[in-house]
Amino acid sequence: MTPIVSIVGRSDSGKTTLMEKIIPELGKRGYKVATVKHDVHGFDIDKEGKDSWRHKQAGAHTTVISSPKKMAMVRDVDGDLPLRELRERFIRDVDMIISEGYKNDRHPKIEVYRKDAQGELLCSKKDMLIALASDTDFDTGVPCMHIDDVEGIVDIIEDRFLKKQRKPSISLRVNSKNVPLNPFIKDMMARSITGMVSALKGCEDPKEVEVRISP
Amino acid sequence: MTPIVSIVGRSDSGKTTLMEKIIPELGKRGYKVATVKHDVHGFDIDKEGKDSWRHKQAGAHTTVISSPKKMAMVRDVDGDLPLRELRERFIRDVDMIISEGYKNDRHPKIEVYRKDAQGELLCSKKDMLIALASDTDFDTGVPCMHIDDVEGIVDIIEDRFLKKQRKPSISLRVNSKNVPLNPFIKDMMARSITGMVSALKGCEDPKEVEVRISP
Repeated sequence: MTPIVSIVGRSDSGKTTLMEKIIPELGKRGYKVATVKHDVHGFDIDKEGKDSWRHKQAGAHTTVISSPKKMAMVRDVDGDLPLRELRERFIRDVDMIISEGYKNDRHPKIEVYRKDAQGELLCSKKDMLIALASDTDFDTGVPCMHIDDVEGIVDIIEDRFLKKQRKPSISLRVNSKNVPLNPFIKDMMARSITGMVSALKGCEDPKEVEVRISP
Repeated sequence: MTPIVSIVGRSDSGKTTLMEKIIPELGKRGYKVATVKHDVHGFDIDKEGKDSWRHKQAGAHTTVISSPKKMAMVRDVDGDLPLRELRERFIRDVDMIISEGYKNDRHPKIEVYRKDAQGELLCSKKDMLIALASDTDFDTGVPCMHIDDVEGIVDIIEDRFLKKQRKPSISLRVNSKNVPLNPFIKDMMARSITGMVSALKGCEDPKEVEVRISP
């Protein structure tokens, strides 16, 4: 399952700036990154008057623009989707997901802190804080990296999320709802389906399997 | 499987304008629509300077913006994705997909034609043309609707794609590649997995199933 880490911090602590440094450093190391930004107020992404903008304005639930090098999608949702659901439903083909914000989601976090931004730290170990990126020292029981030490911060991300072997995981949605599975059922379903698929020609080593059955 | 119809026509024949009329009419009849627009030249969707724009500029493969009412995603692709693949990988929760353009994709088409735009018709029955929306009459063996008869055009779409019962379908991706399945294997896999899932509590009637196994 694609690992998720969240970059959190107060307003103007420099979250986006840190993201802008982490992303190319991970790229240099050969990893593909997806980012997620939470926008509580809603957003306006497309350009007024463009065909895709006109489709959405006319009431399309989903609008896709597809080109040879990139694609974009804007769609309606019934409420804020947690990172886990965004990952399972929409994010493919990347090695890791870095969110900006999502302080309250249950995923590992790196907090950005600047003396100038004042105030207390936002997170502690109980919020799944794994490191600080700060211009001042803290003794919180997690590594405190200097905010400009991009390589050091990316080392922590790489060691923790990208180098270790992960067990196969399985997610299931039935009739548009996520179905939680206990470990035994997970293992049984993953083995059954992987086994079934491995009997197909050209699928002898199925590492990643995606099945959709629709009415 | 979500049905696809393409609105095709020459430049300035009024494809987007017709889309803007069809979408709300389908909405009025209770259907959720996804639209797809092909952009051969690439596009620039986000607003310069926004956090999500900065993430993508920094080299993110995928950038998601999530808000309580809608979400957006911009991602890299390795070449133009056919409609079928866009549907299978990214489009969820809608009743039908209407593309603007995609003349060469093998899906049913409605051609928009205006006298002013001159020239021959783009498509014929062998291109899977199912209707014309035109300001002049044609005898091509498919219904020729007046371009302003939005209800009539939507009647054709509804009769053809939204009223008939469709058989369950199944798609499979293994190690990031689509795996074509013959009808017997499709039926066997759909029944096996649906059967397996229906043994789970709360999943007694699995109409739509999505399984992802990842390393």
